[in-house]
Amino acid sequence: MNETAGSYGAAPGKWWGWGDPDKRIALSDEALAMLRDELGEAQPAARVELADVALPEPQPLPDALSNAVNRASVLTAHEHRVRRAAGKSYPDLIRLRAGRLERAPDAIVFPGSPEQVAAVLEVCGREGIAVVPFGGGTSVVGGVEPFGGPHDRVISLDLRRLRSVEVDRRSLTANLGPGLRGPEAEDAVRAHGLTIGHFPQSFEYATVGGFAATRSAGQASAGYGRFDELVTSVSMITPSGELRTLETPHTAAGPALRELIVGSEGTLGVITEVTVRARPAPESRQYEAWVAADFESGCELVRELAQADALADVTRLSDETETRVSLALAGTSGARRTLLNAYLGLRGRTDGCLVICGWEGDRESVDRRRSVSTRLLRSGGAVSLGGSPGRAWERGRFDGPYLRDELLDHGYLIETLETAHEWSRLGELYAAVGGALDGALRAGGTPPIVFCHLSHAYRDGASLYFTFAARRRPGAEFEQWREAKAAACEAIVATGGTITHHHAVGRDHAPYMGAEVGELGLEGLRALKARLDPAGIMNPGKLLP
Amino acid sequence: MNETAGSYGAAPGKWWGWGDPDKRIALSDEALAMLRDELGEAQPAARVELADVALPEPQPLPDALSNAVNRASVLTAHEHRVRRAAGKSYPDLIRLRAGRLERAPDAIVFPGSPEQVAAVLEVCGREGIAVVPFGGGTSVVGGVEPFGGPHDRVISLDLRRLRSVEVDRRSLTANLGPGLRGPEAEDAVRAHGLTIGHFPQSFEYATVGGFAATRSAGQASAGYGRFDELVTSVSMITPSGELRTLETPHTAAGPALRELIVGSEGTLGVITEVTVRARPAPESRQYEAWVAADFESGCELVRELAQADALADVTRLSDETETRVSLALAGTSGARRTLLNAYLGLRGRTDGCLVICGWEGDRESVDRRRSVSTRLLRSGGAVSLGGSPGRAWERGRFDGPYLRDELLDHGYLIETLETAHEWSRLGELYAAVGGALDGALRAGGTPPIVFCHLSHAYRDGASLYFTFAARRRPGAEFEQWREAKAAACEAIVATGGTITHHHAVGRDHAPYMGAEVGELGLEGLRALKARLDPAGIMNPGKLLP
Repeated sequence: MNETAGSYGAAPGKWWGWGDPDKRIALSDEALAMLRDELGEAQPAARVELADVALPEPQPLPDALSNAVNRASVLTAHEHRVRRAAGKSYPDLIRLRAGRLERAPDAIVFPGSPEQVAAVLEVCGREGIAVVPFGGGTSVVGGVEPFGGPHDRVISLDLRRLRSVEVDRRSLTANLGPGLRGPEAEDAVRAHGLTIGHFPQSFEYATVGGFAATRSAGQASAGYGRFDELVTSVSMITPSGELRTLETPHTAAGPALRELIVGSEGTLGVITEVTVRARPAPESRQYEAWVAADFESGCELVRELAQADALADVTRLSDETETRVSLALAGTSGARRTLLNAYLGLRGRTDGCLVICGWEGDRESVDRRRSVSTRLLRSGGAVSLGGSPGRAWERGRFDGPYLRDELLDHGYLIETLETAHEWSRLGELYAAVGGALDGALRAGGTPPIVFCHLSHAYRDGASLYFTFAARRRPGAEFEQWREAKAAACEAIVATGGTITHHHAVGRDHAPYMGAEVGELGLEGLRALKARLDPAGIMNPGKLLP
Repeated sequence: MNETAGSYGAAPGKWWGWGDPDKRIALSDEALAMLRDELGEAQPAARVELADVALPEPQPLPDALSNAVNRASVLTAHEHRVRRAAGKSYPDLIRLRAGRLERAPDAIVFPGSPEQVAAVLEVCGREGIAVVPFGGGTSVVGGVEPFGGPHDRVISLDLRRLRSVEVDRRSLTANLGPGLRGPEAEDAVRAHGLTIGHFPQSFEYATVGGFAATRSAGQASAGYGRFDELVTSVSMITPSGELRTLETPHTAAGPALRELIVGSEGTLGVITEVTVRARPAPESRQYEAWVAADFESGCELVRELAQADALADVTRLSDETETRVSLALAGTSGARRTLLNAYLGLRGRTDGCLVICGWEGDRESVDRRRSVSTRLLRSGGAVSLGGSPGRAWERGRFDGPYLRDELLDHGYLIETLETAHEWSRLGELYAAVGGALDGALRAGGTPPIVFCHLSHAYRDGASLYFTFAARRRPGAEFEQWREAKAAACEAIVATGGTITHHHAVGRDHAPYMGAEVGELGLEGLRALKARLDPAGIMNPGKLLP
């Protein structure tokens, strides 16, 4: 271990927003004009300096905690506490930018081994200190909010030091430490000629432990599998001991404990090892764009592709509004817009829906699968825009959150949420959620732009990913956000969709878990938690209402 | 409801063995000679008549139980009790044939709706009556053994009347009642042009509820998915109320309760609805046989196929002994043997390993996938035996248990068990389990034939399915079986394989669940059970040690 607490203590990226502090995706004048035109004049919000962020005084922690790791692995400096005080949701960013954090962890603890995790949990259980497991801190549902629950003190357990890698080339699996960020995990298996293939938008900062704890889905999950499908076994240290599942490709031995640990969001324990399936790194990658006439026929097309096993590894269908807005926001080059406009002009239409398809794998497989999809896309009425806009999407695939920072700078609310349903109910869900968001923000005096894409398709249904933007209501940001979020969640629940397809539950969706799993489902989860975490120290206030 | 208790009360098939009483697969003289030669002279065991099966006196049950269903739906006649007193494992069949049943349910109750299931559980919880959910009764691990646990009385809850079907053609899903047998469920979706594609060897008698409760895998699960992968949502009535998961293609909302219900083996409650994914019924089916030089290179071939996504929907590789023995037992026609022998002769070898490959789907997909597999099989050194032995396998795919009855008639022990591991440990597992079975039976004075096939392959590993046969030890049948079974289970556990890949846990594997999920895993499951089934009435003695 060459690292010092200082080097692993500094979480990467902007403390007040997303990613590389030196990277910025500026909005073009044209984009700003469109936003002004559609959302009204917004009031830019000032951002405080890091040093001016007000935090509650840290509570003193017992020496036993430092002894459980080593003194240098416990940090309490202001910056470290600010950086672990919030995730990356809209309300998180609003609080950070305003420098008003009601809560922050009393310390950040960096265990260097699963044994140290166990030792920390032992001390915290005995002393009544809440523990918030922390990976990349990229939660957009309040998953790392430092709630103490019944406890006065709370630590952030940063898993950054747990970055072991062990590749089984023969079984095509990799045993990974939870603290590995997306690119680190991917690089580690690439050294063996493999890929994990898990590329959520948060890829550059989110961690393996977080992927498992939240049932993450990546942009290419149609091809490689969602992260929960990639996990073959997992180990979790709970306050009551270790839970470990066997490394076997499958078992029929009872209820699947692996599926209890995956998705547990730090509320049962700390994931300390994850074994995932890997594949040979792709020899070929082909990304391209298509246009469907409208969202309804586009959905029908994606359904046909999914049910014919002809889905590209990445398949995303934007609705009319997302197609229009994302092209307008994409920057100044306008290349994609030109192509789309040319297409739309030829069709004598004013709208259309962008479809991004990406195939990865060996050349033969990419060519073959692409030709099957192409046939179905054509016969379903879609028109090809060629490879250039597809590659542009691929280049910018992790950039969405940078754009969000820019919109916040200009005084706009922007937030996303996602759900899923069977194909037979998807249209209803689309209308209900879109209508609810529009209605709630309009009622609050800030008519929004609401748009959506279908990002993960299955044989039996698909996910819908909504984005909504509006003029910020100065001084009432949280209220504005809550009204919109609640309206959307209630519409989802009323339609029988899931409250989250891949962002997880965290704090924001916990009130809807009863609708998701029923009262007895909640009781079952509570019984399990009571056994594994009897003192209730693990990530209080998340997952369970 | 036109049925009377009489009509739905009679479980189909032989009470003392498997399947259609009028169907028999006789052993050829040649096969019997081989058995005598390799296993020694066996002592045929007489079978008692049904009327002579001794059962404990039934305990009287409260009127409230009859009132919960209706009086005609509670059966207590001798035949019904015998038919629900055991599953279809070797020790089950030995007990049935000997007419010595230490336990039998006090009554068989047939709920006509989920509401009646709830009413029955309410009465049983209050009165302290154990409940054994009963589908097809095909468990080979003691899953329907009528243990009372802490309770004096036990009923068998036969789910035969719960056979609803609702197909969502657009989402390609079917909501099915748990009492549907394999062919009934398949016929119901075939009426919509669909297939579920789930064909375990027990297909003709096992039920949808049983498939879900035991994480069943079918012969074509490589193509269609294991049953646990086909289930999109499930509903279970527990003594504490109903658990129901949403009908959505995926969710990231916390630990997967669906995966707790699936595999719960009746110990948490009664599965009353299962929604499964379906596919268009195959337009084409191609089955064929190949021969690999030996089991090791055959495994390597299957691994390559799996990791290249080129696995046939059915892929089975027999080891040398299974190849030899199954051909000898297959009957008198000898067509397959001739082909194999011709191949072996050409190769100047005395052994070889049979590979069965089956592709199903639309013609284009079958042709394409078959040609990819064929290329890999050839380059891996396998030699084609053509379609005839493949089709012969397909015709006899559900016949194994008939052959077992025949062997039992002739005085032979025959039993199967299955496990799974990662590719990097599979050879070790194969040697350990085979050696353990051979050693244990040899030590007991009955040198066995032990053989194996690889039946389910994954990118990261595969299952191994062992069969062992020996001369019966008259008067010590259970001891003989227990010694062999324990040796195999201990070898599996020592090698880190799973104690069951698809037969489930039941009574027989319960002692090994601690090795499978750890002590804390057991405690977690117990905590969950205590919440859902506080009186401990659900299927006592199964799953948990």
